[in-house]
Amino acid sequence: MKQDELKKMAAEAAVEFVEDHMIVGLGTGSTVMHMVTALAKRVKAENLTIVGVSTSRRTEIQAEDLGITMKSIDDVDHVDLTIDGADEVDKSFNGIKGGGAAHAFEKIVATSSTRNLWIVDESKLVDRIGRFPLPIEVIPYGSKKVFARLASENLNPQFRKDDQGNDVITDSGNFIIDLHLGVVEHPHLLANWLSEQVGVLEHGLFLDTVDTVIVGTQDGPKILHAHK
Amino acid sequence: MKQDELKKMAAEAAVEFVEDHMIVGLGTGSTVMHMVTALAKRVKAENLTIVGVSTSRRTEIQAEDLGITMKSIDDVDHVDLTIDGADEVDKSFNGIKGGGAAHAFEKIVATSSTRNLWIVDESKLVDRIGRFPLPIEVIPYGSKKVFARLASENLNPQFRKDDQGNDVITDSGNFIIDLHLGVVEHPHLLANWLSEQVGVLEHGLFLDTVDTVIVGTQDGPKILHAHK
Repeated sequence: MKQDELKKMAAEAAVEFVEDHMIVGLGTGSTVMHMVTALAKRVKAENLTIVGVSTSRRTEIQAEDLGITMKSIDDVDHVDLTIDGADEVDKSFNGIKGGGAAHAFEKIVATSSTRNLWIVDESKLVDRIGRFPLPIEVIPYGSKKVFARLASENLNPQFRKDDQGNDVITDSGNFIIDLHLGVVEHPHLLANWLSEQVGVLEHGLFLDTVDTVIVGTQDGPKILHAHK
Repeated sequence: MKQDELKKMAAEAAVEFVEDHMIVGLGTGSTVMHMVTALAKRVKAENLTIVGVSTSRRTEIQAEDLGITMKSIDDVDHVDLTIDGADEVDKSFNGIKGGGAAHAFEKIVATSSTRNLWIVDESKLVDRIGRFPLPIEVIPYGSKKVFARLASENLNPQFRKDDQGNDVITDSGNFIIDLHLGVVEHPHLLANWLSEQVGVLEHGLFLDTVDTVIVGTQDGPKILHAHK
């Protein structure tokens, strides 16, 4: 099977975790797109009453187009379950997210969610995270200074550009700097250091966040549970 | 003397620290307004070549109107000296800033500055910081969730409103939540905790930042040096 079919497999297995009357956080990305499609089908077929909580404009638009009632995180008092993708997940369930430049909103929703479920194809499972560039969302003012500080710590920063060579802009109007690390030696130390840097809104390290990971594999979907 | 005269006294003493060819960070607030006026006078009278670095739109507009060349922090490779106000300063030179909702940009400039000088009237000197509400800049998405988390930690949060009752919006398009603490018992612990909260761009605790504080007092300006 191709990668996209493995993503779809994980996505379709994940929507079975949604129950009637749940408030469900909907992540962002290509795997989540499959999940939103599958979820909308279930909602229609089983006449479910669920509310989706958005992590990006594009997920919001897709979900509303498919008839899912969407709310802002600030208009719900809790989130029962969030289903999101990930760019890398290690064996301790540490992850890197933000390839879609939506990790700040994703982390806001994840932090408010009772359960977090990630859906990935098997290529995302790694021994150690860091081969995927670690995204940092930074406010424009002072972003070159943040960049210089990251460079002086040998974190190999690079401003993310779109196909036309323009700065990628997040839904909050900020820039993304990707750190090309190879390996993240000490995820918790790096997360703390990045959080303290002035001008940094949010980094893409998601530690101690996820409860369940559904992996699309050639042998079918595998469900992994974190020991939290 | 009235408070505003004490502010002016500190401001005028501070501009003597500016030397020709310096790149000077210009803070934000009522005391800084006096300083920018005095600095512009010195620049004109002595024909100084200095560059100012802005921490807010309003300081930038005032300085440019008075003929000071202004640049963004990202267009200078360093800052020699930053002169800014503070809302409270304790005896260990820990401060609270952000009454003017500009503390994120102020901290970005301060962090890039070789020296930091604060100008205050004597009412700003306190034994322990915290009577002045501690400002937190938060992105709008998820801000009610951040508020709830701050409230659950008994940090007495309040969204800052303008005279018309609308949310105050920063130069980055974010909200301000003020924490009514009375006393900040453990400034460094609180600073670390706030930095790690998802959705928080920057808090108004400025610790280990300032080198020199100039205080406007009834007995004239007093210059205090931090032992760093």
